[in-house]
Formats: sequence, structure tokens, C-alpha cells
Amino acid sequence: MIDQLVANIKKKGNPIVVGLDPMLSYIPETIKAKAFAECGETLEGAAEAICQYNKGLVDAVADLVPAVKPQIAMYEQFGVPGLLAFQKTVAYCKAKGLVVIGDVKRGDIGSTSEAYAVGHLGNVQVGSKTYAPFDEDFATVNPYLGSDGVKPFLKVCAANDRGIFVLVKTSNPSSGEFQDRLIDGKPLYEIVGEKVREWGEELLGECGYSKVGAVVGATYPEMGERLRKIMPKTYILVPGYGAQGGKGKDLVHFFNEDGLGAVVNSSRGIIAAWKQEAYTSFGEDGYADAARAAVLAMKEDIESALAGR
Amino acid sequence: MIDQLVANIKKKGNPIVVGLDPMLSYIPETIKAKAFAECGETLEGAAEAICQYNKGLVDAVADLVPAVKPQIAMYEQFGVPGLLAFQKTVAYCKAKGLVVIGDVKRGDIGSTSEAYAVGHLGNVQVGSKTYAPFDEDFATVNPYLGSDGVKPFLKVCAANDRGIFVLVKTSNPSSGEFQDRLIDGKPLYEIVGEKVREWGEELLGECGYSKVGAVVGATYPEMGERLRKIMPKTYILVPGYGAQGGKGKDLVHFFNEDGLGAVVNSSRGIIAAWKQEAYTSFGEDGYADAARAAVLAMKEDIESALAGR
Repeated sequence: MIDQLVANIKKKGNPIVVGLDPMLSYIPETIKAKAFAECGETLEGAAEAICQYNKGLVDAVADLVPAVKPQIAMYEQFGVPGLLAFQKTVAYCKAKGLVVIGDVKRGDIGSTSEAYAVGHLGNVQVGSKTYAPFDEDFATVNPYLGSDGVKPFLKVCAANDRGIFVLVKTSNPSSGEFQDRLIDGKPLYEIVGEKVREWGEELLGECGYSKVGAVVGATYPEMGERLRKIMPKTYILVPGYGAQGGKGKDLVHFFNEDGLGAVVNSSRGIIAAWKQEAYTSFGEDGYADAARAAVLAMKEDIESALAGR
Repeated sequence: MIDQLVANIKKKGNPIVVGLDPMLSYIPETIKAKAFAECGETLEGAAEAICQYNKGLVDAVADLVPAVKPQIAMYEQFGVPGLLAFQKTVAYCKAKGLVVIGDVKRGDIGSTSEAYAVGHLGNVQVGSKTYAPFDEDFATVNPYLGSDGVKPFLKVCAANDRGIFVLVKTSNPSSGEFQDRLIDGKPLYEIVGEKVREWGEELLGECGYSKVGAVVGATYPEMGERLRKIMPKTYILVPGYGAQGGKGKDLVHFFNEDGLGAVVNSSRGIIAAWKQEAYTSFGEDGYADAARAAVLAMKEDIESALAGR
């Protein structure tokens, strides 16, 4: 699947991942009104509004981007109907040829981690049948529990040609509270980065990159530069562009010399572009076109930053 | 809700939490056959088997224990139908007067963590209506992202009188890979423990314990003793008893002098007791009675260990 991701990036000439993190406040009133008219102001109504909103976004950007990253929390907050909307979104995006990174940040131990891996990236056995419940291409994984938590994911990735992105240095302001603490003179995130490299060694794709990627926030460019060197064959998923403060120039050291090695996520900056001053001319019902314009602007920002390095 | 947990512990005279972590291999053939006859060998069939199995377990132990801890991964692996079974299990246990600790190990940042908190412990707004999607009493939370990831949970806990248990030192063999690393001479888990104490200070229940608890594995008793001192008002959720190797004598230092301060989880050791040599006489269809017997044996083990300290 890392090969598919890299192929998509080359084909579209673009390392942007669209974060499908729907909040009801992002969704135009016309979509919500229609969904609530059909299903009432219920969890099912919220889920239906999300599905329709996502469909508009995906249709508008599918030819431009290699991948999407739905954040499962935004679906899970609407309970079981929300999770059905997550599943439908994954399936819709895959049918459009997009690689789907499930931003699930799961992580547990042993058979429990395996259950998460199977549910999101693999197949579960029920009697004589097997099912692929959520069927994402990649999932994000939290490393706090160590190798016991990650290895079951590696097993499922190997068996199903899927991948993971392990949290290394997250984009949020307080990420340093634990991740930056020095251990024998080295920050924890570097130690996690070394483990990510090690976990990924057995899972290299034909493209030369590993099926085990890392999450490193755009908001910490110097750390990204250092981690790029520690994990040369690791794809880096970079959140924090746009709304969180990251800019194109902050991204250059996340990429390798071949122009590959990183995908950059933007969520609000794209999917709620219509609420930003720069895109108000699109209007609420033009939210999908506004998203497309925001992708193009972001692409140009990254391209010019990479050209200038 | 910490007050409810402590009240339940006092009433039942028992700090045992039953881990409702169903694997299909634990479920008696008769239950599976009935569920598959009704729903086919489908995700719905697996979910139905889990619900019936859990119902039997809960009916058998509800008068003995204060709380249950369903592990969501074991439900999530069966996709949306599995998550519906999780929701039904939570509701059934609450109707039986049990405190429900959702072992979800969620954790993200900002609005994303808030979405998880709302979905599991709070109320989500849809138009003019509100819903409590999963409605657990407590949830487990992963601290790797720092305060940004935890504070949205605190807000929801304060507003809804719910609680969390933050992963501090997990029970698995590789938990030390990151958690034990020394930072200025102090292991990371102690630094996380200090943060847990700090996060919990504003959320004390009437019982004197905080709504912000900690997860510390039974398999690391010396670390438990140290963390007990660092976090005196923190309830400790102790996994790792039984199948993972923890014994009653390992638990004594997790408790305060008042006999409170800790709840001890056992999953397989109780819910799959019928598969163990000591309980084979119950037979497969006697799985619920076997679970009850295992709870009573575990209660005695802990009681005698606490009496002997």
C-alpha cells in the first residue's frame, strides 16, 4: 500500500492529504437541512449530513490529491451511526482511487492491538467467513505501550499489504511535555523515531519506503529535519499545516531529495475553506469548490518552497 | 462518578473489575450456534453472540463486583455491528448498577480529543437535540500527546461527572521501552504520574479521590508502590492480574491504608474461566458460573493479601 501511496503522489504530482474531519459547524445549512429532514435531528441525521458533505469534498479534490485522512473521532462522537458514516467514507474514497489513512491513533497490547489492526486494516474471522470491517489502507498508531502494541499491527500490515503511521512528534503545543524530554541526552521522540525505523525495516515496499511511517508535526520543522535523517526510509505524515500554523517553508526538510518521503495533511484549511476570508466568494454552497481552490493554493505553496530549497 | 465507584466497592466489599473482552473463542458453541442461526456467520452474528455471552457473565457477577471494563477493541474488530454490541453492553451493565469503564485508550488533541470525550463520556449536539452516544462512566486515555490531549476529557468529565484513567505504566512486557526511560533520573511513567496528579487536583470527588485515575499494571508492583505515593488521591486501575502474571500479593501496595485507591481488572481469568483446568467441571455451558467462581477466588486472593500486609 505504500507503493500505491507513492504511485498516487507521483501521478498527481502532489503530496497533500485532505483531512476529512467533519464538524457539523463546517457543513453548509442546505446539506444539514436535507439530512435532518430525512432522518430528523438524530445521530443518523448527523451521519447522513457528514456523508453528503464528504462526498462533495471528495468529488471536488479526488483528481488533485493522492490520499485522504478521515479522523475517526469526528465520526465516533456520533456513536454507531457516526462510525457507519466513517466506514462509508472510507469505501467512497477508495472507490475514487484515493489512499485512505484512518486517523484512529489506536494502540493497546497483544491480542487487543491485533483486534484493532484486524478491524481497521485486516480481516476478521466469523465462523467460516471473513470480513474487512473498516478496511482502511493505513492507520495511525500510538506508541506509548511499546513494541507489544505495535507488532500486532506489523503482522496485519504484512499479511494484507497495509501500512501504519506511528505517532513520533505530534503537532500540538503540549506535545513536548513528554515527547521532548531528554533521555541520555536524546529526546523521547528521537528514541521513538529509531524504533519506527527498526519496526519498518522488515516491511519495505518496492518503492524503497517502508509500510511503517511516522507522524511528525509541521509545527516543529527542526525536529522534522532531524527525524528525516534518523528514519530515511520512513514516510512522514505531517499534520499541522495551515490552521495549526505550519507553512510551506516549514515542510522542506520533511522531504527527501527525491521529492518524496512526506505527505502533508490539512483538514480545516481545506474542508472548511469556505469559512475563511480568502474563500468567502465561493459561498456556503460552494464549499467543495472552495476546498479545491484551497488544495491548489496549498500545492503551490509547497511546490514553491520545495523549488526554493 | 468516582463517588459511585467507591460506593459500589464499599457495598460489594470488592475491588474487582471484570474485563469484558470477548473473543469468539471464549464463547460457548451453543451461544454462537444460536446467534449464527439467527444472523448468519456475519458481523451481526458475532455481535449477537458477544451480547448474549456478556449478558450471561454480567448476570452471574453483578452482585459481586463494583464495575466492569469492556475493551472496545474486541468489539471494534467486528466493525459497526461490534460497536453496537459495545454500546448495548455498556447500557446493560449500567442498568445492573455496575460502573462501566470503557477501555478505549483514546487520545488526540484539541477538538479531536473533545470529540472522543463527548462520544464516550458526554453529550453530542445535533441541531437542537443532544445524545449520549456510548455513555460510559469512565474511559481510559493515552497521555502521549500531553495536556492538549487530556484536558478536553477533563472538561467533559467535569461537566458530566464522569472520569478517566490515564495510562501511566502499562502491564505488558515491553511497556518499559519508553515508559521506563530515565529523564533527569526519573522514569517517564513517574513524570506522567505527576501530571495525572496535577490534572486530577481540580476534579476531586466527595470521597476524596479524583475523577482522574491512572492505569498501572499489576505486573510491576514496585513501580505501583512508588506511583501510589506520587498520586495519593488517584484511583489506580490495575490490569495484568491472572493471565498476565499478577497475583494478590503483588497488589497490596496499589491500595491505600483505607483499603481503597485501587481496582483490579481481570479479563480472561474470569470471562474464560471455563477454559481453565481449575474450572473445567463447570463445562462450556456453565461459563457464567465458572466466571462467578473465578471472581470469588480472586476476591479471596486479594483479601488475604491485603489482610496479610
